[in-house]
Parts: sequence; structure tokens; C-alpha cells
Amino acid sequence: MEKTFLVLGGDLRNVYLAEQLAEDGARVKLTGFSAGIGPSGGTGPSGGTGPSGYAGGLENITDLDEAAREADIIVGPIPFTKGSDLNTPFNTKEITLAELFQALRPGQILFGGMLTAFQGFAARCGIKAFDLLKREEMAVFNAIPSAEGAVQIAMENTQATIHGSSVLVTGFGRIGKVLCRLLSAFGANVYAAARKHEDIALIKGCGYNAVGYAQLPQLMADMDIIINTVPSIIFDKTNLKYVKRGGLMIDLASSPFGVDMDVCHREGINLIRALSLPGKVAPLTAARYIKETIYNILEEMSGKLDYPGGGEFI
Amino acid sequence: MEKTFLVLGGDLRNVYLAEQLAEDGARVKLTGFSAGIGPSGGTGPSGGTGPSGYAGGLENITDLDEAAREADIIVGPIPFTKGSDLNTPFNTKEITLAELFQALRPGQILFGGMLTAFQGFAARCGIKAFDLLKREEMAVFNAIPSAEGAVQIAMENTQATIHGSSVLVTGFGRIGKVLCRLLSAFGANVYAAARKHEDIALIKGCGYNAVGYAQLPQLMADMDIIINTVPSIIFDKTNLKYVKRGGLMIDLASSPFGVDMDVCHREGINLIRALSLPGKVAPLTAARYIKETIYNILEEMSGKLDYPGGGEFI
Amino acid sequence: MEKTFLVLGGDLRNVYLAEQLAEDGARVKLTGFSAGIGPSGGTGPSGGTGPSGYAGGLENITDLDEAAREADIIVGPIPFTKGSDLNTPFNTKEITLAELFQALRPGQILFGGMLTAFQGFAARCGIKAFDLLKREEMAVFNAIPSAEGAVQIAMENTQATIHGSSVLVTGFGRIGKVLCRLLSAFGANVYAAARKHEDIALIKGCGYNAVGYAQLPQLMADMDIIINTVPSIIFDKTNLKYVKRGGLMIDLASSPFGVDMDVCHREGINLIRALSLPGKVAPLTAARYIKETIYNILEEMSGKLDYPGGGEFI
Amino acid sequence: MEKTFLVLGGDLRNVYLAEQLAEDGARVKLTGFSAGIGPSGGTGPSGGTGPSGYAGGLENITDLDEAAREADIIVGPIPFTKGSDLNTPFNTKEITLAELFQALRPGQILFGGMLTAFQGFAARCGIKAFDLLKREEMAVFNAIPSAEGAVQIAMENTQATIHGSSVLVTGFGRIGKVLCRLLSAFGANVYAAARKHEDIALIKGCGYNAVGYAQLPQLMADMDIIINTVPSIIFDKTNLKYVKRGGLMIDLASSPFGVDMDVCHREGINLIRALSLPGKVAPLTAARYIKETIYNILEEMSGKLDYPGGGEFI
Repeated sequence: MEKTFLVLGGDLRNVYLAEQLAEDGARVKLTGFSAGIGPSGGTGPSGGTGPSGYAGGLENITDLDEAAREADIIVGPIPFTKGSDLNTPFNTKEITLAELFQALRPGQILFGGMLTAFQGFAARCGIKAFDLLKREEMAVFNAIPSAEGAVQIAMENTQATIHGSSVLVTGFGRIGKVLCRLLSAFGANVYAAARKHEDIALIKGCGYNAVGYAQLPQLMADMDIIINTVPSIIFDKTNLKYVKRGGLMIDLASSPFGVDMDVCHREGINLIRALSLPGKVAPLTAARYIKETIYNILEEMSGKLDYPGGGEFI
Repeated sequence: MEKTFLVLGGDLRNVYLAEQLAEDGARVKLTGFSAGIGPSGGTGPSGGTGPSGYAGGLENITDLDEAAREADIIVGPIPFTKGSDLNTPFNTKEITLAELFQALRPGQILFGGMLTAFQGFAARCGIKAFDLLKREEMAVFNAIPSAEGAVQIAMENTQATIHGSSVLVTGFGRIGKVLCRLLSAFGANVYAAARKHEDIALIKGCGYNAVGYAQLPQLMADMDIIINTVPSIIFDKTNLKYVKRGGLMIDLASSPFGVDMDVCHREGINLIRALSLPGKVAPLTAARYIKETIYNILEEMSGKLDYPGGGEFI
Repeated sequence: MEKTFLVLGGDLRNVYLAEQLAEDGARVKLTGFSAGIGPSGGTGPSGGTGPSGYAGGLENITDLDEAAREADIIVGPIPFTKGSDLNTPFNTKEITLAELFQALRPGQILFGGMLTAFQGFAARCGIKAFDLLKREEMAVFNAIPSAEGAVQIAMENTQATIHGSSVLVTGFGRIGKVLCRLLSAFGANVYAAARKHEDIALIKGCGYNAVGYAQLPQLMADMDIIINTVPSIIFDKTNLKYVKRGGLMIDLASSPFGVDMDVCHREGINLIRALSLPGKVAPLTAARYIKETIYNILEEMSGKLDYPGGGEFI
Repeated sequence: MEKTFLVLGGDLRNVYLAEQLAEDGARVKLTGFSAGIGPSGGTGPSGGTGPSGYAGGLENITDLDEAAREADIIVGPIPFTKGSDLNTPFNTKEITLAELFQALRPGQILFGGMLTAFQGFAARCGIKAFDLLKREEMAVFNAIPSAEGAVQIAMENTQATIHGSSVLVTGFGRIGKVLCRLLSAFGANVYAAARKHEDIALIKGCGYNAVGYAQLPQLMADMDIIINTVPSIIFDKTNLKYVKRGGLMIDLASSPFGVDMDVCHREGINLIRALSLPGKVAPLTAARYIKETIYNILEEMSGKLDYPGGGEFI
């Protein structure tokens, strides 16, 4: 049996997602986007990507109850809420969580980002809710646009090529790994800092310069660019004084961040905080990641793969 | 004997060049830059890069005659002229070619970009003039910032990651080679078009998809990004109709360009013409290339290497 | 205080290790190597690598008791035992475990591979024993020579270049990752098979073709080379019939292996089982890994780094 | 009209070539291979590669005159001759050049390696003869197996991984470029020596360490592996004394070679001369290069492409 999707609010990623689901042949309804944005007209992404007609059809519906009625699967925003409302930046009218759950019915499947807090309540309503941001493959995928975005920011904020620049990356997790690989391909002198012996081994194995955190101060003065990926203060007043004059700092980590912004302001250090890069630099691609992750979850639930597209999207 | 350089006008590259020559220990004079730009004060690049004091010294001199008097080597702008004046975008006052040659004296060495037309006249004045843009190593070096700049433009003008995008590069010369390498490192599906069998062989050898020009129309509809490097119209009304809806075209070629701009405007195709990228995206690095090339020429002239820095700058 | 090492038996790796420790300035004694092998003469590795004189000194001692007396740190073989004896392939005389533990004294530190079974007994003797093969950084490092060795075997057993070959790697753990990266750099068409969604995501992110295990049969006929890294039968009579005529299979996994050898023999499939590659293809490098891992453990024990070399060996 | 090929003698490459032409649908005759070798039976490559039946058919013919009668295109050995005979290492009986040209008839097209000396004579017989080794795309392609072969030799003759080794490549032509790229992907510290400023610029641009020839002596002692690609003595008694103890030298250059073998023997330096690697390490792939080059030439002759396979083989 063919499934009907409701894509409910969110940012550009969800608009692209609706289009991509429709391209795969699913029936897709869209709610939470005001006129002028999205596939039904206006300046939105539809101009750029999708074929003009979809097998399953893509319909922009204003009324939440009507939209939710026929849906088997609801895909909400990432992150799911803003205050006590649904996160719908492109909607002129707020949708409260109460309104949402009133519109849903037992047996439906709900996806969204950071909705873990609502999973218990959803379960009591007979709704299976999945937090997309808890999925490992999502984190793996998102490292790609995050790293690309960091490279773009570095390019836009320096007077030199990445090639030949000395760049320090702190943290060698998912983003750090992709980022070092890109920087190295550009011909940068890549330094990566990590704590664990096995990460140090991996950094050496990848051919980058391995750095322990104790060595940072003596190294920092030679770095043209420093990019942090660790969500824990690594750079503060004890070592920010070693930053090269004219050097660039980029902090990719979420709160509590990795670089002390106040110290940077005081010292005149050029710090750029870059959060949620996937949705900003590559919403079209981020939508594909969301789609693939949803297909994976549906496949795991059903025990077999009968959803459109089959996940081999990249 | 230590040499004295006069860096005469030009853009940011020459400001950086003056600083780098001074860092190498040379005596450097700077003319053709108004107050507020450059190393002697203001918002220019000096804030970002150089050490505060140079062994040889760096002096900003307003009077051309005074500046030229002690110089052994004069480095002019790239390109050298704008109309019949020297190309001095950061100067409030024009310097004519006549004024320039009056200030110079026999035995001096003159560098600049696109000054081939003046080499004969310079020779009659006893001045050896070298066109930096005719140097092979300069062209090789400049391919790096050109390719990086093209990647940056692609990133800034698409909603998807480079990773997973299909990108066609027309022309497999210096820039095409570096560009394909970068795009491939990002994880793009890289297609390169060339005419000669040996270039097709090289493209295959590098692991990219090799494309003959006759195959372009059938291929273009699948490309997310098309980047031209050939200074000869490749894309016109006969094939621009095949560009994917929402696809991005970037033309890196100089006049007569490779993409018909009028057709793109008419058809609503997103075309970005990007010229002289090295000086724009990476003036600091471009200055290093100029310096290395000047050192190479001086070394060739002298038969031995006695200039500061020795060229191992990268 | 300077430490004295006893390197006790083992293969070529331990001979190189003794030399490298001595090069770092440590006092090193060597036991368990008959004349003709090793640094004190003969055809061993000493000819190739070390400087002729070491600060700390390197001494080949026949008598175990004498050798063990002054040692602070004892480095045994990898693997530690062969039957009930120490694993000393280059010795003409066996050393039993009983003899070994009789020679040791409380306070000494013992390293070796697969000696977990003896850690309890060692502890009762007042000896701290560490199993080198349980260390994460060791596993990370060993992936490098394992992957290089697999490439070498592939080269030696095919009539085609790696470039342009289609290669399937099953398993995307430490070795699989390095191996895919190398093969891709050669210009192979790389397919990687994994089970977990996050590994599939990572494979796609790295730009390889991601394959689920269910897809293997339909894929295998197109593969020139298949390399298994999973120690669990992946290839048996149900799918080995799909191997391409003339295709090469390499099994890097330890027992119970990943490819059914009997079926390969019966079907005339070219299968190469390659075990313990680091010690075989690159004993010199493997010795450096051992040394770095020992330094890491000693550093962790002491809380600070006061051992020669400091681990920045690569 | 479909063409008939005669593949005439040569080594394994020509056996594979015959098979590949037949796979493309051409009628192919084979002469100059004794029983037991080749596609009609025996231990040759047929076991490994080709499908058992070809559309066009592949026929092993003993009699040269009969074989030549129906052929439109004759592909001879690479190199073409051995002394005054055709180079047929797998034949029990010699074929003289006189016999060959007697069997050919006007209008036929002849390919081979190093047959430039016979082109005039062939022309007088009404035969168009092409020297495959003079083709640029052939040289570009052959750089791939040459570089792979060099890596294989390095692996087989060292006790360390390529990763982490310091490798010097002299000459930055076709082979040097591919070789440096592979070594760098392995994680070697790559040094490349060249003479021209533009090559030095390119080496730096690729991220390798650029070396002038004057710097070789001071560098050599730190190199684990030195690979020469320049057919002109670079390494002789003046500098071979600087080779690291235990270092490996590989000479890929043809006569007059780049490394003085006598000095190496005298000094106990491990030198490996590796010639004609494509035919040795990857005859199957080398055959594809030959086929593609032949198709290119035929396409150029005809002005259009009507030969089987179309050349998009890689």
C-alpha cells in the first residue's frame, strides 16, 4: 500500500523534503508554509529543483486537520519546537503543540528533530514518534555539509588560499574527520588535536599532524586558521593570547561552544560561530539526508523495504 | 649587495608583496597607495599579516621621483596599465606612463603584468622589463586560487553540497586539472570535457568521467554545476537549452569567454562570470606567487641565487 | 631515572623495536635471538636501519636470568606464547613460561601480545602485565600495514591495474576504511559492504559505492577483486558461485575467517588468506607502533611523559 | 562495414588485446602464438577474463599468409622487432620481417610499437603503419601501470609501510606525477625533484616537497626510497654516497637510465631497475590502452567513429 506523507512546517529543508518524497512517487501534503514559499509558487526552492509534475502529487494545504487526516506519516520540523509552538519559520500563523496532537490520530508515525521530550506523550496517543537527530546515520551525513560550510567560511574570511595555509582542527569526531580530509585535499598543512591515544593514532594514520591539547599554546601562533568542533571550552583567556595576529577562528560547536567569545571580542580576534550549517549551506542535501533516514526507520519498522526510492539516493 | 625594491601601485597584491619583500629582509619603498591603505596605517592588510618591524624597512613614499631614485628593482601593477595611466586603483592621483618612464633610469629592472607592449620602449631606456603574466610558473601557481575561488562560488550559489553533486568542467588545462581534483576530493561526480585524445586519456587516468565536446548536450541536463575554463564560446544557444533547471554555470575564462551571457540572461540561466580570481580571493597568496616569480627571474639573470627568501616560500 | 628495557624473543618486529628503543637513548637488552639474527651481527635488520652506536646501548644477552636482572621493563613476543613456551621463532632453544616468570621480579612491567591469560598470575608475582593487542591505538595503527599489504597482494595476483578495477570490500571497520581510501586513490571503483545504517552513511559520505549484504550476489559478478575484513563467514556456497571468472578473493579476517576456503578450492576460485600482515609486510613500522603504544602505557602509568622519544615518531 | 583484425605475435598484452577486440564484436585472428598459450586453450589469460563465445569470433591461425589474407587491420608486437625478426616471444618459430611484408597487401593498416623505421617501407607497399608508442594518449595511459608497478616494487623491497616513509621522486613528467599522487595517498612524505621553475611550481601546488637538483645530496640521506624517472644519469658516484644505509633505489628510466648501476653494486646500494612495467604488471590493462589508442587512430583516419567499443572503456 502506498503511503501518504504530511510535511509539517520547518525550514527550507522540509520544503525540499516534500518535493523529494513526491519525486519518489509518494503522495505528499505540506502544511505550515505561507503562500509565496514552497512548491506551489513563489520564490522558494521549487524553481530550482523538482520536475514540474509528480506521480504521487504534492499539495499545499492550509488547514492542519484536513492535512493530517489522510497522512500515514508526519514529518515535523528540525528542531521540532520553538517555545511551546511548532517551529514553523515560514508560516504566518503559529501552530501550538496542543493543536498538533489534537489533529493527529492513533497509528500515525511522527518524525522530527529534538522531539524526544514528546515521545512519551505521543506514545500515549498511539503515535510512534522518532527523533531524527538521535539517528547515527543522520549525524554521519550531517558532517559533510558542516565540513563544507566550514571550508566556505574559511575561504570567505581569509586573504590567502586554503592551499598552503596552516589549519588546526580541534576534535577528531565526525566533523573533524571530514574537515581534515577536505583541508588536506586543498593542500593545507593540517593539524588535528585530540585527547585519546587512539584518535592520535588515527590522526597520524591519516597523515595529519597530531597534536595533544597540552601542545596547543606553542602551536597556535603558527596557525592561519583554527576550527573548533568540541562543545566544551578549549580556547579561553589562557591560550587565546597565542592566536596569530590576523588569524581566523571558527567555532562549529554547539553550546557551551569551544571558544570564549568574550575574550575574542576583547582581544580583537576574528571569531566566527557557525551553527546548524547543514540547513543553512545545503538545505537541498540536508533534505535528502532526512529522507534517507526516514526510509531507514520505516524499513526497520516494517522488516522490509517497500518505500519509494530505496535509500540509494546519493 | 642588497637590493632596493620599489613597489609601484597596483592592488592589494602589491601591498602584500611589499610587506613580504620587507619580511625577507629587503629594503622596500611603496608608491601609488593613498593614505589609509597599506602598511603605514589604515585598514589594509598590514593589520593581519606582517611583523611590525622589518630588517630592511618598508617606507610609503608619495613622490614618484624620490621613490624611484634609489630603487634597483621596480614592481608595477598587474595589469600594468589602465588606459594610458599606470593601474593604481588605491591612489587618489593618476600616474601616467610618461611620468613613470621619466622617473626611471638605465640599469633598473621593471616587473609588471601585461607590459609586453612597453618592453621595447623600456629597453631603449636601458631598462629590462619582464611581463610576470608570461611566466609559466605564475600560470601554474595562479591555477590554485582560481580553482579555490571557483569552488567558493559554487558553494555560495547552490543549495546542495559539492559532495554528491554532478559537476562538468570544460577544458582540462592548468585550472581544469586543479579544479577537478578539488571537486573530486569533495565527493562530487566529476565530468571533464576535452578535445585531445591525450587529455581524454589523462582525465580517465585521474579517475574522472571523460567527455568529448560532441557529448555535451546529452550530458548537460544531468549536471548540477557547469564550470568553463576555455576562452572560446563552448556554450551558446545551440546547447544552453539543455542546462538543468536550477543548474549553475560558472565561467572562469577571460574574453571572449566560454558561455554566451546574453543567451543565459534570456533563458534565465544562473551564470556567474568570475575573472582574475587570484587577486580577489587570495591577494596574500597571489603576492607570494609574484614574489617567487620575481626571485626566479632575478636568479636566472644573475646565474645564482642571492636574493632574500630563496623561493622556498610555500 | 633512565629505564632499562629487556626485549625478549618474538619476531623481526622485536628486533627492530630493540634498535628503536636504543636509538631513543634507552638501555636495551635483547634475549631470545640466536646468533646471526639481530643487531649484534648477521643478516638481520640491523644492517638496514639503525645508527651503529646508541647512547643507551643495545646488548644481546644469552642468559635469561642475567638479562632480566637489571630490566625495568620487559617486552615479550606478539603473540606471547607458542604452546606452553614463549614465542621465540628466532631462538634455537625454547624458553618456558615457568623459566620466564622465575627470572622476573616484583615491580617489573611486562608487555606482550595476547598475554591476558597470564595477567592474573603476573599480578600475584607483583608484575604489571599489559596486553599490547588490547590497545585501541595499536589496532588503529595496524590497519595501515594491513591495508597496504592487501593492496600489495592484489597487485601481485592480478593482470590488471588497481586503477579501473572494480573492488568490493566487505566490512567497514578500521582496515576496511583505510583500504577503501587507498583503493580509491588508485582509481579503483570501490564498493564497500556494511550492515549498519551509519556505516552505509559513512561509506556514501566517503564517496564509495555503499552495498548492503543482501545485494552481494547481484554485485559479485562485476567485481575484479573482493577483499573481506569481517571475521565471520560472508562468502560461502550460497554466493561464491557468483564470483567473476578470474576474479581474485582476499580474506584478511582471522578465524573463523570470512570466506569458505573449501568452496573456493572446489570451484577453482583464487582465494588468498592473508593473516598478521603488519609483522610480515612492515616489521620495521610495526615495531614503531609497538614502541609508541608502550610509551603511551608508561606515560599513563606515570601520569607524565618522561620516556625517550615522546611518541611523536610518525 | 565490419573490420577484421589480425593480432600478430607479441606478448600477453596482444593475447588480451585479441580477446578484447573480439568482446567488442570484431572478427579477430591471432597468429604467432604457439599452442598452449592464448585463448584457444592452455594456461594463458583466456582462463581469467573473456566470455567463452564472442560475436565476431576469435580464431588462432598458424599460417601467416592465411591469417593475413582477410585482415583489414594488423596489430603487431610492442616492440615490433627483435633483431631482424618479429618480436614473438610465445611462438616456437621465428617470423622474419621479410615474411611479414610478403604476407601483407596494399590497403591494410599496420600497428605496432617502435616500428617508425619501417613506416617508409610499409608506405611503399601501400600499407599505412602507425607506431603506437609515439601516441601521446598511450604515454599518458602507460604512466598508470608504471606508477603502480613502482609502488609494488617499493612495497616488496622494504620492511616499512609506504605510509610514513620519505620518498624522493626525480623527474615530474607523466610517471612522476602519477607516482607522487599515489605515494602521497599512502601517506608518504613525498619529495619531487625537477629542473624547470614551472615544474617546481606544480610540485608545490600539488602539496609535495619541491626539490632542485642541487639540493639532492643534502636530502638523500633522509630518504627511505628514491625513485628515478629521468632517462639521464642523475645518481652517480658524486651523490650515491649520500644514500641512506638500507635505503632503496628504483630506476624506472629506460637507457641510458638515471642511476649508475656499477656504483650501486660497489657501494652495496639496493638498486632495482624496472623497465616496461605496463606489460609486466598489468598486461590486461595495457591491452585496453592499446585497443583504445588503435580506435582513436582509426577514428581519426575515418573522420568518424564506427569501430566497436567506441573507446569509452575505462
